Amino acid sequence: MKFELLKTSNAYAARAGLIQTDHGPVETPVFMPVGTRGTVKALTNEELISASASIILGNTYHLYLRPGMDVIREGGGLHKFMNWHRPILTDSGGYQVFSLAHMRKIEGDVTTFRSHIDGSLHTLSPEKSMEIQRMLGSDIVMVFDECTPYPCDYATAKESLTRTHRWERLSREAFDATDPLWGHTQALFAIVQGSVYEDLRMESAAYLTNLDFDGYAIGGLAVGEPKAIMYELTGKVCQQLPAEKPRYLMGVGKPEDIIHSIARGVDMMDCVLPTRNARNGTLYTRRGKINIKRAEFSKDFSPLDPECPCPACQNHSKAYLHHLYKTGEITGLRLNSLHNITFFLQLVREARQSIQEGRFSKFYENFCQTYPMEEDHSAKNAASRERRRKS
Amino acid sequence: MKFELLKTSNAYAARAGLIQTDHGPVETPVFMPVGTRGTVKALTNEELISASASIILGNTYHLYLRPGMDVIREGGGLHKFMNWHRPILTDSGGYQVFSLAHMRKIEGDVTTFRSHIDGSLHTLSPEKSMEIQRMLGSDIVMVFDECTPYPCDYATAKESLTRTHRWERLSREAFDATDPLWGHTQALFAIVQGSVYEDLRMESAAYLTNLDFDGYAIGGLAVGEPKAIMYELTGKVCQQLPAEKPRYLMGVGKPEDIIHSIARGVDMMDCVLPTRNARNGTLYTRRGKINIKRAEFSKDFSPLDPECPCPACQNHSKAYLHHLYKTGEITGLRLNSLHNITFFLQLVREARQSIQEGRFSKFYENFCQTYPMEEDHSAKNAASRERRRKS
Repeated sequence: MKFELLKTSNAYAARAGLIQTDHGPVETPVFMPVGTRGTVKALTNEELISASASIILGNTYHLYLRPGMDVIREGGGLHKFMNWHRPILTDSGGYQVFSLAHMRKIEGDVTTFRSHIDGSLHTLSPEKSMEIQRMLGSDIVMVFDECTPYPCDYATAKESLTRTHRWERLSREAFDATDPLWGHTQALFAIVQGSVYEDLRMESAAYLTNLDFDGYAIGGLAVGEPKAIMYELTGKVCQQLPAEKPRYLMGVGKPEDIIHSIARGVDMMDCVLPTRNARNGTLYTRRGKINIKRAEFSKDFSPLDPECPCPACQNHSKAYLHHLYKTGEITGLRLNSLHNITFFLQLVREARQSIQEGRFSKFYENFCQTYPMEEDHSAKNAASRERRRKS
Repeated sequence: MKFELLKTSNAYAARAGLIQTDHGPVETPVFMPVGTRGTVKALTNEELISASASIILGNTYHLYLRPGMDVIREGGGLHKFMNWHRPILTDSGGYQVFSLAHMRKIEGDVTTFRSHIDGSLHTLSPEKSMEIQRMLGSDIVMVFDECTPYPCDYATAKESLTRTHRWERLSREAFDATDPLWGHTQALFAIVQGSVYEDLRMESAAYLTNLDFDGYAIGGLAVGEPKAIMYELTGKVCQQLPAEKPRYLMGVGKPEDIIHSIARGVDMMDCVLPTRNARNGTLYTRRGKINIKRAEFSKDFSPLDPECPCPACQNHSKAYLHHLYKTGEITGLRLNSLHNITFFLQLVREARQSIQEGRFSKFYENFCQTYPMEEDHSAKNAASRERRRKS
């Protein structure tokens, strides 16, 4: 993998770059659709390509459980299995083990867990995560880390960071000790952790930079902390990371989060939001999100967004999308998903173009003025967590 | 609507024809995918066109309830509402009122029923069905009839036939008394009923031929009667119908039913089977149907049918389709649906081509030898009905 920094904004830290992989280029900033189990939900590869998706995500935890590594091995790796021949990034499986699996027990560097599907017993470790990602054959492999929840007290965050750093070093060693299996090269990205504590974040960025990875992710944000903290830490960590390596903010996010993160120097992002929300009827437009199930759309025969090139906007009315949603038609979930993915990809592509053309400030300020920011629910969420804790 | 009979098989009653509508041509024999609620389930119009679907069905009962006639009116009719600009045939709503609705009461020629969705009270009648189908703007309108269940004793079948004939005449009169609403012409098809009784079927065909419709459907078959009866009555009714009008066998069926019906002189067929079965993982091939969820396919990396032009076969393996099915991915339901629709459309297209080229006998006999016929479950079903009745 090669990364070329093409242009940096003057007033902001926003950057335009180019990642080269054996499966083709990825222009950054980039939004990566999530293909958890070998497909971006409700979409085909052809549709992703028509929406100009240049890289997608696969989830190690899910793919390890289903179809399982024997199928991936016999199928020739994940690219071939799912017939997607552009770049793939896979996560390490750590996040899902700690958020999805039933039961988990850490002994040394090995985490034992039960599958959320059938309760079967499995283990994951830095070495095993590398082994699985070698088998999947992703172009970008993520180190195995521990993602701290929010809130997380300082002592816990510090202890977790020590473990995460050991796991990242072990991931690096296991990755270096093995070869790619499918004839194309794989890159390894580190993950900066440290919860909401700036000193831990700085320590993490410094430690990982020293180990010299192909790219650096920021993990453990967008997990419920106030937006201001997320934006601030993202900016500070980006400043601390080497300019010549791509930076990936994991699990982000809403359109406004994406643009604010780009302004702070982030190159790559991923989120299930566009596809998950599509299946809930939430559709994104330049004037914010709407819920297509609302009665006001039942006789609205105008397109969702006449300028959007997706089939939902080009071929259909809001009234039709409303009808498909209300009747539970799969066709509606498809059209909604394709619209949202098109919107996210196009928004980031426009941000990139503005950086390249030296007018990101104007793009950013215009976006901030015209796109309705959602309320930051973190305080409300924290209060309800507290109520639950007390009761 | 114009119908041109182009060629008839020598040894069999199979015919190749051409229906001309204001929304374009329909080459017959034709299989019509079912788009119950304004979409063929899990598919887009572009996909239907790429699979060479020339006409689709809409269900009056479902569309009347959702999105409702006010939406269809303001949306400019069904073609415009769903952005499908090839021909549409709509049923009369009668079948669903008698099979789906909660509660139904016939008073005179008006049937009162409760919506299966929300229990709301509605009425349907020959006049109202015509009014709805005028509003939908289907290219082919079906008369309002009563579909007898199987089994049905002779007296009941005869009484029902009298009512059905009155309703069909009233449909004809209401249709003739109204004009199309959307600037294109609409045709009206009659429906031959009479249960499994040959004399009633002949009487029905004669009565309806006398009223001079644009086409003739055969209803009330494929409702559980033995296959032999269905095939025999289909053939006899076809012989009785005017050669210069298209013949439509409603709700048929499995691939073997389709080909046997074509051999007996049927021009048009529709069935939810390809899309419904796709969503159950049942996929059709030239060597019969398979269930993709079976474990034997988990590591079968060959395509479902290498000669099938659909994306599931051209881009993916059985192992991938198996994985998508097992994980409940919408993408799997899509690929399966598109494959089955492609299979049904192509099978009928090949039958048509063989008729046109004067080699239908060979095609038919080859099909009968190579396609594994499914067991006729009608006897088993009858026995279990009898058990339920007695208990």
